Amino acid sequence: MNLQEKALNIHYQHKGKLSVEVKTPVSGKEDLSLIYSPGVAEPCKVIHEEESKAYDYTVKGNSVAVVTNGTAVLGLGNIGATAAIPVMEGKSALFKLFADIDAFPVCLNTNDVDEIIRTVKLLEPTYGGINLEDIKAPECFIIEERLKKELNIPVFHDDQHGTAIVTASGLINALKVTGKSINNIKVVVNGAGAAGIAVVKILRSLGVPEIILCDSKGAIFEGRTYAMNPIKEEQAALTNPHQLEGPLEEVIVGADVFIGVSVADALTPDMIKTMNKDGIIFAMANPIPEIMPDNAKLAGARVVGTGRSDFPNQINNVLAFPGIFRGALNARAKEINEEMKIAAVYALAEFIPEEELTEDNIIPSPFKPGVVDNVAKAVERAAIESGVSQKTSIVTEKVSISR
Amino acid sequence: MNLQEKALNIHYQHKGKLSVEVKTPVSGKEDLSLIYSPGVAEPCKVIHEEESKAYDYTVKGNSVAVVTNGTAVLGLGNIGATAAIPVMEGKSALFKLFADIDAFPVCLNTNDVDEIIRTVKLLEPTYGGINLEDIKAPECFIIEERLKKELNIPVFHDDQHGTAIVTASGLINALKVTGKSINNIKVVVNGAGAAGIAVVKILRSLGVPEIILCDSKGAIFEGRTYAMNPIKEEQAALTNPHQLEGPLEEVIVGADVFIGVSVADALTPDMIKTMNKDGIIFAMANPIPEIMPDNAKLAGARVVGTGRSDFPNQINNVLAFPGIFRGALNARAKEINEEMKIAAVYALAEFIPEEELTEDNIIPSPFKPGVVDNVAKAVERAAIESGVSQKTSIVTEKVSISR
Repeated sequence: MNLQEKALNIHYQHKGKLSVEVKTPVSGKEDLSLIYSPGVAEPCKVIHEEESKAYDYTVKGNSVAVVTNGTAVLGLGNIGATAAIPVMEGKSALFKLFADIDAFPVCLNTNDVDEIIRTVKLLEPTYGGINLEDIKAPECFIIEERLKKELNIPVFHDDQHGTAIVTASGLINALKVTGKSINNIKVVVNGAGAAGIAVVKILRSLGVPEIILCDSKGAIFEGRTYAMNPIKEEQAALTNPHQLEGPLEEVIVGADVFIGVSVADALTPDMIKTMNKDGIIFAMANPIPEIMPDNAKLAGARVVGTGRSDFPNQINNVLAFPGIFRGALNARAKEINEEMKIAAVYALAEFIPEEELTEDNIIPSPFKPGVVDNVAKAVERAAIESGVSQKTSIVTEKVSISR
Repeated sequence: MNLQEKALNIHYQHKGKLSVEVKTPVSGKEDLSLIYSPGVAEPCKVIHEEESKAYDYTVKGNSVAVVTNGTAVLGLGNIGATAAIPVMEGKSALFKLFADIDAFPVCLNTNDVDEIIRTVKLLEPTYGGINLEDIKAPECFIIEERLKKELNIPVFHDDQHGTAIVTASGLINALKVTGKSINNIKVVVNGAGAAGIAVVKILRSLGVPEIILCDSKGAIFEGRTYAMNPIKEEQAALTNPHQLEGPLEEVIVGADVFIGVSVADALTPDMIKTMNKDGIIFAMANPIPEIMPDNAKLAGARVVGTGRSDFPNQINNVLAFPGIFRGALNARAKEINEEMKIAAVYALAEFIPEEELTEDNIIPSPFKPGVVDNVAKAVERAAIESGVSQKTSIVTEKVSISR
């Protein structure tokens, strides 16, 4: 059986991937009278008196909704809410396996932005956090922004921030390897969707002075009249300090870093040859990167990362979101703010000791013991220090991850 | 520690009662590539082509949303969505323990009927069934009725139908014990909320000729001008064939059966003395029944049931909803119709062999092995025979319940 057949088989055999289990001991009638009527009235009364006690007496404090409408699923595009269930179950499984978080799919049968916002708002009581997933741009930006304002629990669009955080971590280490400074580089980001925009934002907040954002029509600059939208307009004003115009092959000349969140084969060896010495290439299109690592190196790139597990330097979201939510939940954070994201970036980068950093080892494996824990602790601390923790007594709890 | 303290303790210690677990084997990277990217794309594509395949490849076919807005929780009343979480977790736990169903709370922060309906509609993709819980009357009637029309999965308001089904089962056996015929009895139902209305409906469909529905103001009859609502108006026209007026103590004279879904101490020994010989009393107010069993028997009642586990004949919803949903899910039923409910009534009643029926043994214990299974099989069969099964090949699968 090939991978495709095996994947179908395992889904069919188990009818999906998640189950809901009872974690309290139940051996008979008496236990039932504690977890259901009449005993269950007691925690209800406590929470009715003080709503925040839901974190102490219910699943709320450890549960995350994986919310989608199925409009931008993997490379499959707009396949709808029902066909998106396997991905949301898979994401929920990663939450459990990497951070012991109880996540469950919320697949919403609508493309209406207001309806999605309203629905998630109504669902808030049960959850400690909201992970937005595979919702297409630009709706994903509006939905996340409004939910962040309206909810008292963290809202995180992983396609944006997960990718951005891991990319930024990898970049920090790649710069160390190549001896470049983040305050003195030219970066081209190719792809102006959810991930590309988020990468640009985080690199700006890390101090990168020259970022040029490209889409399939080339560099985005102020006053560009074609293929624009409000999000691109905003970035046009904030990036591209020399207001370069033209296709990728023109604006990439003299760049130190190329970050691709676009499509297969978007980057050619000839383009790499025009970049600065010791170029850094993150070619993250899936499953086929913007350029294959060997070709990038042959053309002169020094550090190459992709989204794939079969090459070195895998830039993989699973390095970020489990630890970020674990830290946010441990802190009972009311949001995931920029401080927490930046804390995750550095916790991830610093997880590889300097003496172990090499061109082919700029980012840890998600299977390396302690990596999620390290991110979680840094995020929890940042939540407390930046004042978004809702814990009544601020004690940094032991981050416990069961597997 | 008393029961209250123990209950609080167990909720606090475990932070709620549910966890979400990964049911597929995951031992390393390769397994992840099957349950997440890239393998997960395969079931997505299959479902995108044929939506019903979600039952084969995802949790959908075994998952139930336990939906509430917290407006009528236990005896606590309108405590809101967050304070209702412990009850919904408890209900979900019962689904798992009795029928191996993956249920999860959906606690909605709204009292608006249209919003609840719309939200549940948007949530439909992930679930195989919807269990409405602890939503106050009359909203619960409207919500259930409209969702039944608009969704393609079963919608079941347990406070209505669960209670009604178990009550009807108990009544069938109590009539056998007392030698009375269902076609020749007078029944007084005291309490015109969700449960009372549902009890009246199921007894009518079982052929009870004379039912008098009472609320705290007495018998409900056509043209009554006080404390009416559209639901009571409807029942006034369909019940009370002699259009009796007056308080409970007047209309109960000559009754064979009293069914209480009302408040503590609503029924007195003097009232029972005016009933027919071999009276049947189901006093189901919780935690204190309409009359205590000993007092009812002293006053002449022959069969007495309550909602409590510390007396004989416990009329308990948990006898119905797990098997009903198990059967509906096994059949991939698009609804839970009257045929399926009636099938559950008889499956439950017949679970006690005639030779074992006594005044104190008219209803099985939910812990009796096979009781859920028996209901599930009958409900699945009724779903198939009444044409609401969505299975492509109609084969009665083995009903498997893991514990």
